[in-house]
Amino acid sequence: MVTDAPSFERLVEAFRRLPGVGKRSAERLALHVLSAPAEDAEAFSEALLEARRKIRRCPVCCDLTETTPCTICGNDGRDHSVICVVERPTGAMAIEKGGSFRGVYHVLHGAISPLEGIGPDNLTFDRLVARVEQGHVNEIIVATNATAEGEVTAQYLSRLLERTGVTISRIAHGVPMGGGLEFADDMTLSHALQGRTTITKP
Amino acid sequence: MVTDAPSFERLVEAFRRLPGVGKRSAERLALHVLSAPAEDAEAFSEALLEARRKIRRCPVCCDLTETTPCTICGNDGRDHSVICVVERPTGAMAIEKGGSFRGVYHVLHGAISPLEGIGPDNLTFDRLVARVEQGHVNEIIVATNATAEGEVTAQYLSRLLERTGVTISRIAHGVPMGGGLEFADDMTLSHALQGRTTITKP
Repeated sequence: MVTDAPSFERLVEAFRRLPGVGKRSAERLALHVLSAPAEDAEAFSEALLEARRKIRRCPVCCDLTETTPCTICGNDGRDHSVICVVERPTGAMAIEKGGSFRGVYHVLHGAISPLEGIGPDNLTFDRLVARVEQGHVNEIIVATNATAEGEVTAQYLSRLLERTGVTISRIAHGVPMGGGLEFADDMTLSHALQGRTTITKP
Repeated sequence: MVTDAPSFERLVEAFRRLPGVGKRSAERLALHVLSAPAEDAEAFSEALLEARRKIRRCPVCCDLTETTPCTICGNDGRDHSVICVVERPTGAMAIEKGGSFRGVYHVLHGAISPLEGIGPDNLTFDRLVARVEQGHVNEIIVATNATAEGEVTAQYLSRLLERTGVTISRIAHGVPMGGGLEFADDMTLSHALQGRTTITKP
């Protein structure tokens, strides 16, 4: 029985370290790898090592990239005076998918979370401050998540950059497009009311 | 942006080949690997290669194993005269977890499925016949899945082994333990009625 094999145990353990993968799923994934052609396992193994070796943080925005600087920081067609600050690479990916943002990004690689022992020193604030101090920056759009950690991080950022005189904005929080009021939670509705914009003024 | 990196694309593709992993999940898993310590990626890569290299089919029962023969086929405490035939290693694992079966297994590595182009030659029937022909086998318990493919495979098996004179049985299909009649589907109820056993006889 394969569950007796130490090498199977180690493979299951490796899969279990992935987010959202429990014991049952890990066993299923490990068995799939063992049933698939040996070349697939070799390609998988090589893909892991290659990506880990080639992909680094961009020295400018700290996003993950294979090029230096990353394709967005190296693109003269983007507006380098507007920096959108996100917690993780996935945040930048999501905004980029939207296609309406023409500025550049800064990836913090997390949010301030005393509970998880993540303080400002664990994030890439120093790099962001350095970018702002170099000049040419007009606006910082804070797009950290709408969670307690994201809000604390946004407040810390605004205090940190206060003295630089640059405009600091926060993305709007409100009822999602296509969403009925009856599906929005209290916090979202409260933010939607607070963040209301004037349509006509007498 | 990391999505522009070819090595990231390859890693996402490798994850997508796993069962039940879509594009979004694959990206999430790849990003996790890139954020985790480099040693984790190396350990993962090594675990894949090691398991694929060490784990083979048992020459007796065709289950996946690191030892030759596997721990069950090599165990004199098991009843080698009763062979339980399952489609996949997971089937044997499930029965083994139950703990009540003391015989041995035979893993077919699939079920007959003309739609998927899987015929008897793609499965391990020849090995099973060889085991039966060596003698010492009293009963074959067919525990293929309760699907169309599993039933066809069970029928093929009973015809294949007819001439050997060994007892061939099929595991019972019926209402699961703890399950109310109202939750069982029509096919299950029909099987439960057909497979009824006598409690008392006048």
